[in-house]
Amino acid sequence: MISSEHYFDWAATAPSDQEILNRALAYSIEHWGNPSSIHHAGTDAKQALENARNRAAQVLGVKPQNIIFTSGGTESNHLALLSILNRPQKGSIVLSSIEHPALREMISSIQNCGWKVIKVDPEKNGIVSAQSIADAIQDDTAFVSVMAVNNETGAIQPIYDIAKIIREKTKGKRKPFFHIDCVQAAGKIPLNLEFPGIDSAAFSAHKIGGPRGTGILYLAKEMNSFLKGGGQEKNIRSGTENLFGAEAFSLSLEKYFISEQNSCAKKRFEQQKKFTAEFIEELKNIKGCILIPHCRADSESADLFSPWIVQAAFPGIPGQVMERALSEKGFYISTGSACSSSHKGRPVLDTMQLSSKEKESAVRFSFGFSTKKESMEELIEELKNICKTFS
Amino acid sequence: MISSEHYFDWAATAPSDQEILNRALAYSIEHWGNPSSIHHAGTDAKQALENARNRAAQVLGVKPQNIIFTSGGTESNHLALLSILNRPQKGSIVLSSIEHPALREMISSIQNCGWKVIKVDPEKNGIVSAQSIADAIQDDTAFVSVMAVNNETGAIQPIYDIAKIIREKTKGKRKPFFHIDCVQAAGKIPLNLEFPGIDSAAFSAHKIGGPRGTGILYLAKEMNSFLKGGGQEKNIRSGTENLFGAEAFSLSLEKYFISEQNSCAKKRFEQQKKFTAEFIEELKNIKGCILIPHCRADSESADLFSPWIVQAAFPGIPGQVMERALSEKGFYISTGSACSSSHKGRPVLDTMQLSSKEKESAVRFSFGFSTKKESMEELIEELKNICKTFS
Repeated sequence: MISSEHYFDWAATAPSDQEILNRALAYSIEHWGNPSSIHHAGTDAKQALENARNRAAQVLGVKPQNIIFTSGGTESNHLALLSILNRPQKGSIVLSSIEHPALREMISSIQNCGWKVIKVDPEKNGIVSAQSIADAIQDDTAFVSVMAVNNETGAIQPIYDIAKIIREKTKGKRKPFFHIDCVQAAGKIPLNLEFPGIDSAAFSAHKIGGPRGTGILYLAKEMNSFLKGGGQEKNIRSGTENLFGAEAFSLSLEKYFISEQNSCAKKRFEQQKKFTAEFIEELKNIKGCILIPHCRADSESADLFSPWIVQAAFPGIPGQVMERALSEKGFYISTGSACSSSHKGRPVLDTMQLSSKEKESAVRFSFGFSTKKESMEELIEELKNICKTFS
Repeated sequence: MISSEHYFDWAATAPSDQEILNRALAYSIEHWGNPSSIHHAGTDAKQALENARNRAAQVLGVKPQNIIFTSGGTESNHLALLSILNRPQKGSIVLSSIEHPALREMISSIQNCGWKVIKVDPEKNGIVSAQSIADAIQDDTAFVSVMAVNNETGAIQPIYDIAKIIREKTKGKRKPFFHIDCVQAAGKIPLNLEFPGIDSAAFSAHKIGGPRGTGILYLAKEMNSFLKGGGQEKNIRSGTENLFGAEAFSLSLEKYFISEQNSCAKKRFEQQKKFTAEFIEELKNIKGCILIPHCRADSESADLFSPWIVQAAFPGIPGQVMERALSEKGFYISTGSACSSSHKGRPVLDTMQLSSKEKESAVRFSFGFSTKKESMEELIEELKNICKTFS
């Protein structure tokens, strides 16, 4: 098994939490029925599923009926977005231009269905202003999507301000549906899903130790899903329910979701802020290294970013070269998101007014609950070595 | 744990194959990286994923590049169907009216996008004739879907004849995309995916001992997927790849898929034909019991049906009453599909010219590889007891 000691790509996936996965599989094997069957084997599985849902809801601070289990962050994002296609009248949707590909790459399909897509760029600091979203909203805007934490820069987006400004701007009219991709936020920063104006949010289990192939769609109220079938999950997400995934995700949320109730996760979060502040100071000491966005070098901007993600450029060393050189030494980082690895370019960085030298040499470091401070120090040493080799 | 000894609802789900699930989880934990990451943790997981894909492809008799891992049968069906929405010109689709809800319930969404839906009823025997499909196809038909085995009656559909007649009818024109839902066929009857004219097929793991939440879409050639995102699975199915699911499904296919190479599965299939023939004879001996479709009572029609599914009516005893009465005794059967349990009525039976008495009292018995003949005999005894109580 590949060691995760020098793994700094937690934004792509967390190493499995073995205890959680093993417990969830035993639970799933025990409750093997189809939760939609009405005989005892079915009702037994259904009860087990609802137990997982209740616990996930409690951790997320919402009601169980607001939790829809899905096959991952991508599907959660799709379900929210596609619901607009059922509307009899077409209109526009507003997306930040730094959304995850699960939303950003859907633009062509949405346009093929006769909808207009309005993209909103972030400021130079990687943050999309609430005002710019408000300015983009048209009378016919049915859907707005802004992620909570950008997966490449770690920039925390002002989702509560955006929720508020959307309500204000559309007072007396039909409010656009406001969706938030929380995949890089859950278990990473505190979240308040019940903030007025938030209509839905997407979550992925494998970013916090759960299994790949499992997600949650939080829905503030019922929705007419475009994807229809057997009617499971309140007719929002059809398909036989994945009890293993649901149980494992609930266990992951209970263990890692940051909230006042979870002192352990909260403490680890505060600790990571310090680790990352020191990591950034060390990066600044590496000759040529440029923090991205530039303001990240300024310690006063720390609260604008997730402490679990740092993006930096090493001009002269292409990002993929840095990634491979580190991988050779057993240090795993990435250029951008794993979900973009099959695409060319760095669309998120393109929106941030960076030089092409910076964009080409930018890499992402991302951390998780089991990242050790010493490992981060060793990463700095290895970065210094590589920079020396290439200078 | 609920015993599966008297479980006769395998069409809803198979009890977990514990060995397969445990092996697959260990494999997934070992290869914990994001398969799209380009560092070693990622390439290690990618290799593990491709290993699973290669084995699944070999069992299914197709090339690895034709295998797309998905989150289940429903998603596999959706992916194939939704691809038409990318076409610049709208037209019609042809569906048999006995398709699984994953396709049948999508009609309203497809219509909302400006497409016409043409439904084709089966004959009285529950079988959709190839000619009726050919007759329904219009010049603008872009997509045809007929399932391989109906999930309620077990009726085997003439998918090869349909593939052939579609090619003949549309010779010289653009052939409609022909999709087959194989969820109740894989591991149940032999299948030949490489038959000319078959463009795609949907599979579900949990029907043959694999985990809930895992499927395969077989694609004869590349397709422009409507659902876009990180571009995983050849841009057909975006979202971080579920290695546990992929490995478990491959192991399930290796163990249970019926083919010349799998003498064990083939032998079990032949055995089930005998078990089911005897079961049907016993049902005929129960006063008032009516096989559905009626021709199922005729032993000469046995080859028209999957031996793993039998539908029968007990007029005077509503289906749900029969289901509950049996469940009380630890015998698990169903009325229709679990995926329809949230809907009212019996749309599949509605297409088959049955009396309302028959429809109301119809139930489904479905069997699997670990179903014992003695258990089936005990089921018959219990059915007799219940019929006596209600007479």
